[in-house]
Amino acid sequence: MTDIARRVTAEFFGTFWLTFGGCGAAVLAAAYPELGIGFLGVAFAFGLTVLSMAYAVGHISGGHFNPAVTLGLWAAGRCANKHVVPYIVAQVIGAVVGAAVLYAIASGKAGWVPGGFASNGYGALSPGGYTLGASFLTELLATFFFLFIILGATSKGAATGFAGIPIGLALTLIHLITIPVTNTSVNPARSTGPALFGGADYVGQLWLFWLAPIAGAIVAGVLARWLYNDGALVDTSVVEERR
Amino acid sequence: MTDIARRVTAEFFGTFWLTFGGCGAAVLAAAYPELGIGFLGVAFAFGLTVLSMAYAVGHISGGHFNPAVTLGLWAAGRCANKHVVPYIVAQVIGAVVGAAVLYAIASGKAGWVPGGFASNGYGALSPGGYTLGASFLTELLATFFFLFIILGATSKGAATGFAGIPIGLALTLIHLITIPVTNTSVNPARSTGPALFGGADYVGQLWLFWLAPIAGAIVAGVLARWLYNDGALVDTSVVEERR
Amino acid sequence: MTDIARRVTAEFFGTFWLTFGGCGAAVLAAAYPELGIGFLGVAFAFGLTVLSMAYAVGHISGGHFNPAVTLGLWAAGRCANKHVVPYIVAQVIGAVVGAAVLYAIASGKAGWVPGGFASNGYGALSPGGYTLGASFLTELLATFFFLFIILGATSKGAATGFAGIPIGLALTLIHLITIPVTNTSVNPARSTGPALFGGADYVGQLWLFWLAPIAGAIVAGVLARWLYNDGALVDTSVVEERR
Amino acid sequence: MTDIARRVTAEFFGTFWLTFGGCGAAVLAAAYPELGIGFLGVAFAFGLTVLSMAYAVGHISGGHFNPAVTLGLWAAGRCANKHVVPYIVAQVIGAVVGAAVLYAIASGKAGWVPGGFASNGYGALSPGGYTLGASFLTELLATFFFLFIILGATSKGAATGFAGIPIGLALTLIHLITIPVTNTSVNPARSTGPALFGGADYVGQLWLFWLAPIAGAIVAGVLARWLYNDGALVDTSVVEERR
Repeated sequence: MTDIARRVTAEFFGTFWLTFGGCGAAVLAAAYPELGIGFLGVAFAFGLTVLSMAYAVGHISGGHFNPAVTLGLWAAGRCANKHVVPYIVAQVIGAVVGAAVLYAIASGKAGWVPGGFASNGYGALSPGGYTLGASFLTELLATFFFLFIILGATSKGAATGFAGIPIGLALTLIHLITIPVTNTSVNPARSTGPALFGGADYVGQLWLFWLAPIAGAIVAGVLARWLYNDGALVDTSVVEERR
Repeated sequence: MTDIARRVTAEFFGTFWLTFGGCGAAVLAAAYPELGIGFLGVAFAFGLTVLSMAYAVGHISGGHFNPAVTLGLWAAGRCANKHVVPYIVAQVIGAVVGAAVLYAIASGKAGWVPGGFASNGYGALSPGGYTLGASFLTELLATFFFLFIILGATSKGAATGFAGIPIGLALTLIHLITIPVTNTSVNPARSTGPALFGGADYVGQLWLFWLAPIAGAIVAGVLARWLYNDGALVDTSVVEERR
Repeated sequence: MTDIARRVTAEFFGTFWLTFGGCGAAVLAAAYPELGIGFLGVAFAFGLTVLSMAYAVGHISGGHFNPAVTLGLWAAGRCANKHVVPYIVAQVIGAVVGAAVLYAIASGKAGWVPGGFASNGYGALSPGGYTLGASFLTELLATFFFLFIILGATSKGAATGFAGIPIGLALTLIHLITIPVTNTSVNPARSTGPALFGGADYVGQLWLFWLAPIAGAIVAGVLARWLYNDGALVDTSVVEERR
Repeated sequence: MTDIARRVTAEFFGTFWLTFGGCGAAVLAAAYPELGIGFLGVAFAFGLTVLSMAYAVGHISGGHFNPAVTLGLWAAGRCANKHVVPYIVAQVIGAVVGAAVLYAIASGKAGWVPGGFASNGYGALSPGGYTLGASFLTELLATFFFLFIILGATSKGAATGFAGIPIGLALTLIHLITIPVTNTSVNPARSTGPALFGGADYVGQLWLFWLAPIAGAIVAGVLARWLYNDGALVDTSVVEERR
C-alpha cells in the first residue's frame, strides 16, 4: 500500500468504529430495560473507540477520526496540507458506512423504530431541550478543550506513548458532561452519519455540528502554536511529529 | 517447564479467567437487586480479564485466550502453525473449566436456577430478540474490529508495552455495544463453556459463535498483512514479534 | 511566551476544565431521567479532567490545577516560592470562569434552577447531612491522601510517564467515597467557582474548603520529605523535578 | 528514615487507603438514593486504591497492602523472610485505623447505623446468601488469580512500569464478580478492620477470610516458580526484583 492509501484506510476504519461503536452503544444498549448502560456506558463507548483505534492506527495516520481534529491539527501546523481533504473524505465515508451497518443490525429486532438514531441536535432536538445558543457554546468549548488536550498530549514535551489514553478518556469525559445538551458531537463526521438515518430535521441541524466543532478546534490549534510550539511551524502529521 | 507447556498453561488460565470472570459478573452480580452492576459492569469485567491477563502472561503465550484471536493472528502471519491447535485446545478446556467452577459457586445459593448461564444466543435466545442475520453480522463485524485493534496495537510501529490496555478496553467496548444482540461472544471458547451448562438450545446455536468470529478474525488478519506489515510474513507469535 | 506566562496559562485552562467538566457532569447529566450518570459518572468526570490535563500541560506547569496541590508540593520542596501565588491566582480565576461558562450553558434550558450548582457544603448543605466535624475530617484526610499519591507517583523512584493515570484516578476514587459527605472538594479553587453561583450560604462555608484541604496537603508535603526525599530539599516544580 | 521504616510506613498508609477508600465507598456512597454508585462504583473504588498506591509507594515497599499478597510473593521467592511479619503487622494496623476513621466519618450523620459496615461474610452474612463452601471456593480462587496476575505482571518478562494498572484493575474485576458472594475480601487485613466495627458475628467468620485468601495466594506463588521463574529463587521484594 502507498502511504496515503494506508492513511485513508486507517481513518476510514477508525471513524467507522467511532460512529458504529459510540452510536451503537447508544442505540442498542443505553436504554435496555433494568440492565442498560445509560449515558455513562455511552460515554465510555465513545472514548474507548478512540483509545483503542489510537493505539491500532495512530502510528499510521495520526489517529484523527474527526474532521475537527484534522483541521485543528492543521491550524497548529501539525497536519500537512495535502492530507486535509483526503482525511476528511475518508472520515465522512467511514461515519456514513458505520451508521448504515448499525442501522442494519438495529433493524434486526422486531418492532424497532429508529427515533433520532443517536443523532446530534439542538433546541427541540436537544435531549434535554437546550437552546441553539447553549448548544453552540457547548460544542465550541468542548471541541476547543478536546483539541487543547490532543495537541498537548502529543507535543514534544509530553510523555511518549501515552497520548491515546488521555485523548480517548477526554472524549469519554466530554460525553459525561454534554450528552444532555446536544447528544455530544465535537465531531462533524460522527454527526453526519446518523443524521442521514435520523431524518430531515436532524440533517437540517448539521450545520451547527460542522461549524461549532471546527471553530473550537481551530482556536485551540492557533493557541497551541504559542503554548506548545512557541510559534514554530511543524508542517507534518501528528505521527511524523511524534516519531 | 518447556516452552510449549508454559504457553498452553498461560492460555488455559487466561481463558479460564476470561470465562469465569466475565460470565461470573453476569451471572452473580449483574442483576443483584438495587446495587447490581448491569451490562456496564459486565462489559468492564470481560475487558479487565483480558487487560489483566495480557500483562500477566502476554510475554509467555502472546495472550490470545480466544480461538478467533489465535486464528486471526495466524492469518496475519503472526502465530506459528504449530501453536494453533495446542492454543485452541487449551482455550476451550480453560473456558469449560471456568464455566464449571462458576456453576459450582453460583449453585451455592438456595433456589438458584442457571437460566441461560451467560450463554450466547441469537433469535429466540438473543437477549434483545435480534435475528440470526443481525447476530451473525454483529459477531463478524465486532471480531473483525477486535482483531484489527489487536493487530495494530501489537504491530511494530505501535507504542511498546501499551497493547494490553487498548485490547482489553476494546473488549469492554464491544460488550457495551453488543450484549443486547448476542450477549456478546467474539470468542468461540467463551461461548462453548457456558453453553454446556445453559442447555441444549444454546449448544445448538454454538455454530454461529464459532463461524462468525473466526470469519471476522481471518478477514482482519489478511487486511493486516497490507495495512500493518505491507505483506511481510512474520511466522511467530505476538510475543516473539514484540520482543 | 515567557515561561511564567505558559505556566499560568496552563494552570488557568486546566482548572477551568476541572471545574467546568466535573461540575458540568454533576449539574447537567448526573440526575438526567432514567439514563443519568449518577455519582459514579461525576466521579469519573472529575478524575478524567485531571488525567487528561496532566498529559496535556503537566510538562508545562506541573499540572496542579488546585491551590492545595500547589501548597502541598511547596511544603514538600517541589514548587518554587515564586510560583505559588501566580499559580493559585490562575487556578481561582480559571475555576470562576469555568463555573460562569457552565452557568451560561445550564441556564439555556427552560425552567432550569441552579440549586446548589455543584457547590461543596457541610451540615445543612452536605448532600447526605454530615456534620461540620465529619466534613472537615473527610476533606483533610482525602486531600492528605491525594497529595501522598501525587508526591509518590511523581517522585524519583516512580515509573516515568505514568503519574497522570494514578493521580487522575485517585481523584475519581476520592469522589466515589466522599460526594455524599461534602460533595467532594479537596480543591479550594473548585469550591470557590460554583459557590459564587450557588448562593451566599455556600460562600459562607468556603472557609472549610480552603482550610481543610490545604492543611491535609501540607501534612502530606512534610511527610513526603522523609518518605520520598529522605529530607532533601528540591526547590523546583514537579515538572522540573521530573525532567 | 531507615529502609524498613519507609517500607512499613508505605504498607501502613497503603492498607489504610485500601480499607478506608474501598469500604468507605461501600458504606457512604453505594446505596445513596437515586444517584448511588452501586457495586460497580465500589468495585472501582477498591481497584483504584491499589492502582493509585502502587504508583505512589510501589517503589518503596513493593506495594502489597495485603497479607495474602505478602505471603504469595514470599511463596514465590519474591519477598524476603525478614519483611513478612513487619509487613503484615503494618497492614493489619493500617486496615484497623482506616476502618476506625471511616467509622468516625460515617457516624457524623444523624440516625446512621453501621449494619455490617462493609464486612465480609458467608452463609447468613453473605450479601447474596451463598454457602460457606461457595464462599471459601470463591475467596480461594479469586486470590489465586489475583496473585497469578500480580506475579506475572511484575515478572522479568513483563512490560516495565505498567504493573499497577492490571493489578489495580484486577481487584476491580474481582469485586465485579464476587461482591454478592462474600462482599469480596481476597485480603485478610481488609476483612479484619471493618469486622471489628461490624460486630461479633463478623469477627467469628474472620478465619475464612484469612485462610482461603492465603491458601490461594500460596498456590499461585508456588505455580509462579515454574511459570514465571522456571524454579529460580529470588529472595527479594517485588521492588528489588523490578529495579
